[in-house]
Amino acid sequence: MTALPSLDEDIEQGLVEPVGPDGDVAPAVRRARAWLSRAAEPGSVAFWRFVEDAGPVEAVRRLRAGRAPDAVRALVGARAGQDASLVDLQRARRCGARLVVPEDDEWPAPLLHCLTVATSAESDDPRQQSPRTLAPVPPIALWVRGAARLDELADRSVAVVGARASTAYGEHVAGELGHQLGDRGWTVVSGGAYGIDAAAHRGALAAGAPTLAVLACGVDRAYPAAHGALFHRIAEEGLLVSEWPPTAAPHKHRFLVRNRLIAGLTRGTVVVEAAARSGALATARRAQRLGRQVMVVPGPVTSALSVGCHELLRDAELGAVLVADAAHVVEAVGRLGEDLADPPERPTDLRDGLSDLAVRVLDACPVRVGVSPERLAAVAGCDVLDVLRVLPALELADLVQRTDSGWRLAPPPEDGR
Amino acid sequence: MTALPSLDEDIEQGLVEPVGPDGDVAPAVRRARAWLSRAAEPGSVAFWRFVEDAGPVEAVRRLRAGRAPDAVRALVGARAGQDASLVDLQRARRCGARLVVPEDDEWPAPLLHCLTVATSAESDDPRQQSPRTLAPVPPIALWVRGAARLDELADRSVAVVGARASTAYGEHVAGELGHQLGDRGWTVVSGGAYGIDAAAHRGALAAGAPTLAVLACGVDRAYPAAHGALFHRIAEEGLLVSEWPPTAAPHKHRFLVRNRLIAGLTRGTVVVEAAARSGALATARRAQRLGRQVMVVPGPVTSALSVGCHELLRDAELGAVLVADAAHVVEAVGRLGEDLADPPERPTDLRDGLSDLAVRVLDACPVRVGVSPERLAAVAGCDVLDVLRVLPALELADLVQRTDSGWRLAPPPEDGR
Repeated sequence: MTALPSLDEDIEQGLVEPVGPDGDVAPAVRRARAWLSRAAEPGSVAFWRFVEDAGPVEAVRRLRAGRAPDAVRALVGARAGQDASLVDLQRARRCGARLVVPEDDEWPAPLLHCLTVATSAESDDPRQQSPRTLAPVPPIALWVRGAARLDELADRSVAVVGARASTAYGEHVAGELGHQLGDRGWTVVSGGAYGIDAAAHRGALAAGAPTLAVLACGVDRAYPAAHGALFHRIAEEGLLVSEWPPTAAPHKHRFLVRNRLIAGLTRGTVVVEAAARSGALATARRAQRLGRQVMVVPGPVTSALSVGCHELLRDAELGAVLVADAAHVVEAVGRLGEDLADPPERPTDLRDGLSDLAVRVLDACPVRVGVSPERLAAVAGCDVLDVLRVLPALELADLVQRTDSGWRLAPPPEDGR
Repeated sequence: MTALPSLDEDIEQGLVEPVGPDGDVAPAVRRARAWLSRAAEPGSVAFWRFVEDAGPVEAVRRLRAGRAPDAVRALVGARAGQDASLVDLQRARRCGARLVVPEDDEWPAPLLHCLTVATSAESDDPRQQSPRTLAPVPPIALWVRGAARLDELADRSVAVVGARASTAYGEHVAGELGHQLGDRGWTVVSGGAYGIDAAAHRGALAAGAPTLAVLACGVDRAYPAAHGALFHRIAEEGLLVSEWPPTAAPHKHRFLVRNRLIAGLTRGTVVVEAAARSGALATARRAQRLGRQVMVVPGPVTSALSVGCHELLRDAELGAVLVADAAHVVEAVGRLGEDLADPPERPTDLRDGLSDLAVRVLDACPVRVGVSPERLAAVAGCDVLDVLRVLPALELADLVQRTDSGWRLAPPPEDGR
């Protein structure tokens, strides 16, 4: 390893702007995050906050120099003196993977924002923080294997999770769901386990759709080993994603830590089969706490593997929606985005940039029959000149539409999805 | 029929108190309602109101004498001149049946009250009233075959309804539900059809529990004919109930009219299997409009016979509860009665006889740790002497309980049901 540039030399060079003028992330930033991803187990609130506050390069410097707070140094221990960052990046490259960091354009920031928000509610006192298996901490970086862009794949994605020891019924339904979601342009996100996970991926792949597997081990490893061929196909058509560096082993606790990413990277989570008190239930409740839609496929009440699903549907506070097919799923998660059928529930981001005046004029627009600017001014409680000033911008944003009778709300986009 | 007392003679004698000093219903009242039950098809708002306003005996006199309002006379037509009332009562007696009338102690008045309330919302103009197949009209009288008391059987009852062309899964679940509900002291109420109806009855009978079939034909008829033996057993262990007089045929529209009784006579309705747009869905929505709990058994999403069930569960406005077994059912309907686990939601009838003062003292009682009468007086906003006056009566009614630390709410009865 002596032939490789020293981490500390690299880091010294990295104490410049993390992203260059052309939008490229400085190599030292990526290398720093690679080092950080092996230095401490993911899921620690204290560690994530330390990196967030110091920045990745400075965080590595302080940890290497023993200048980090005690609580953070304790998380790294002897690994502060080790360095496999360059080797990990090379291992990744050899299996068609790369490290995607928050500084990259490709980072799925809007989706992962829910984790940042949830983490902000965590105490400053490490003893009061959620345990690592439950803490809603954003990832430090993501090892990603496959050609697709992570943000694009995750943008319209739904998690499909469930039992490993699934029944033929559950596998059939997960496969059908995966296939139908893929057909509709939605990415299936799941783990890499036997049962529902694999069936959902296979269904999506059979539809020629990309799919995204979030692993609890290195993206260069196949766990379970029998899924080697499946992972190979997922990496070719979609993405394998992990917080752990290449060669990392699938320790049991890592699956629990991983689960928050499955919830965070998707718009909603569908539980297909789950026994009573199973892990899928915890994943579903976790998704709900992150503000994600929980969807549940029911099954025969005589099946032990649907007991957990039915418990979710009986939990009024969870607000889970019963789904029997992909149309139900898209209806449930589409509310948040472009699949939306109901104009009054337009995605808020379209309105976010609007002035108070523009919002009032928009709210005054009828759904069906267009009305005059005078009428809009009367309803919105403003001057007609103001209405005339605002309408062109609203039309440009596809929010309103001019008809023979005047102005009305634009119908939602019909893209057939 | 000339040997029988004339209806009109009987009716003249009946123009006295309908219920004698010993609580017995005057024979003329029962005979009048027997006549009325054949004179017009059940389900008419105008007819029920006419009988309610005039009283059954006077209603018969006016109809026989052609002195009823036109709209009501039109419902009876030529039947005004006919009389099979005594024959019907004799036919009933021969098959072990009787006519239960609203004047009887046995009339399930508290349950059927929901129909009276719903009917009061109907227009006075017959053209504006709900069609007979949908109108929530109380029955004029009920032909009841079997030894059990109607009010006692209906008091703790749940409707179990669903598809006639059910699957083995649906029949198994309906049978299990019937068995478990019977075991817990709940009466299963259903129709007499093939499929879910029959499976639910059979399950209850197998548990040695009474069951109640609400028919759309005379209680002396077996429809479908293959259910003759089943009806015979139901009549022996429970009750066959119908609004139609003996020999009445099971016309198709009568099933729709009958459905309101299945909802009205029970605390809630469980739908076991239902295809899309099936009759069971209409029954469920009808139950909800009558203020009854709708419960739904899910099934495989691959089964056409669970599509309707899943649609009910997806309808947020319906407020249907997913149930997988009898414990879930009892939990859902028990909220309204004695199966209740939560003292603040005690059945209102226990409180109905209480004075305003007693209710205030009761509301002041804590659930766990008993408190002093002084404390209760402070919370209830009344005098301590008043509290002391009221507490013994509340204790006698098992509503409050004395502990070492003072008074608290009595725990709900633990009868293991």
